[in-house]
Amino acid sequence: MRKGEETRRDIIRKSAPIFNQKGFHGAALSDLMEATGLEKGGIYRHFSSKEELATEAFDHAWQTVLDIRLTGLEKIDNRVDRLRQMIRNFRERREGLVPGGCPLLNTAIDSDDGNTRLRARALAALGRWKDRLKACVRDGKRRGEIRPEVNAEELSTLIVSTLEGSLMLARLTRSDEPLRAAGRHLEALLESSVRREKK
Amino acid sequence: MRKGEETRRDIIRKSAPIFNQKGFHGAALSDLMEATGLEKGGIYRHFSSKEELATEAFDHAWQTVLDIRLTGLEKIDNRVDRLRQMIRNFRERREGLVPGGCPLLNTAIDSDDGNTRLRARALAALGRWKDRLKACVRDGKRRGEIRPEVNAEELSTLIVSTLEGSLMLARLTRSDEPLRAAGRHLEALLESSVRREKK
Repeated sequence: MRKGEETRRDIIRKSAPIFNQKGFHGAALSDLMEATGLEKGGIYRHFSSKEELATEAFDHAWQTVLDIRLTGLEKIDNRVDRLRQMIRNFRERREGLVPGGCPLLNTAIDSDDGNTRLRARALAALGRWKDRLKACVRDGKRRGEIRPEVNAEELSTLIVSTLEGSLMLARLTRSDEPLRAAGRHLEALLESSVRREKK
Repeated sequence: MRKGEETRRDIIRKSAPIFNQKGFHGAALSDLMEATGLEKGGIYRHFSSKEELATEAFDHAWQTVLDIRLTGLEKIDNRVDRLRQMIRNFRERREGLVPGGCPLLNTAIDSDDGNTRLRARALAALGRWKDRLKACVRDGKRRGEIRPEVNAEELSTLIVSTLEGSLMLARLTRSDEPLRAAGRHLEALLESSVRREKK
């Protein structure tokens, strides 16, 4: 990797926690300078604007999330069990994540009234996550593990809504109980309305 | 009302959409001056800090939300039907709200890594909403309308998580479908696991 490219990636990696914790407007130049150990000119030689840096930082944070939440799932054969594990990963696998909570939740809220480039990245991130969930549902139907009447779009929307909403409550109350309640509820839903019974 | 008190309330009312849309850091002095039609000195004669104004603006926005979501519920006798109507109100009654989405969701995300005064207000707001839901569940049990095994704390946490998470998705995708999916799901849950069947 070229030296310039290496520095650029390093800036992205070190800025990601600042943007994820403080939001686009809250991330001050002084915070970014402190996190990267660079002066303003040293940072902005690599990025055309704060917006460009923020979108790259978001993509980095989101890729970390997906890697952590989805790794190892392919070893689980049954697609309902795979959905259950994804839900468990959301709650349990939090080491190695960029600090500040879910980048999708943070960036969606931060950009829904304004920043169109950041909003576009958040939309794409949601799309990637839902695509994984929907593919799992489709495969499960084909394999006879998921009931044919299950609506993949609606189920994936519901899983994402419930997990993200419960994370908001968990962070606000500094308690894991909302995440556990959401997990129990979604797992019960998968068993009662999604899993196809063996004939 | 004294003139000073009137001006103070007017500033709160006019600043609330700015804070709700742009967040604490995103709400610039120039935005607040434009919204209120006052100079900096005219605004800060009434508030000791931006934080004080932001917390008052949040409380105003949240009171508007509660008024709109909870008004008229006391006319519905059956407590499961009352919960159903609260859920419908969340989705349908959006006129008259402070623009920018749910103040609780916005302020919780905005303050979870920093501003302790704003976070305390968001916590109190969540508590007030959940207390209303829990009281409804308790009354419903006493009246024989809700199954005795329903956990009021867990059910209210789940309702709030699902609604707030689906609102995040609805605002990000500019579509009402996530809210409708959440509503259908929660209403089905109330019928299948909460409502006590008539003997």
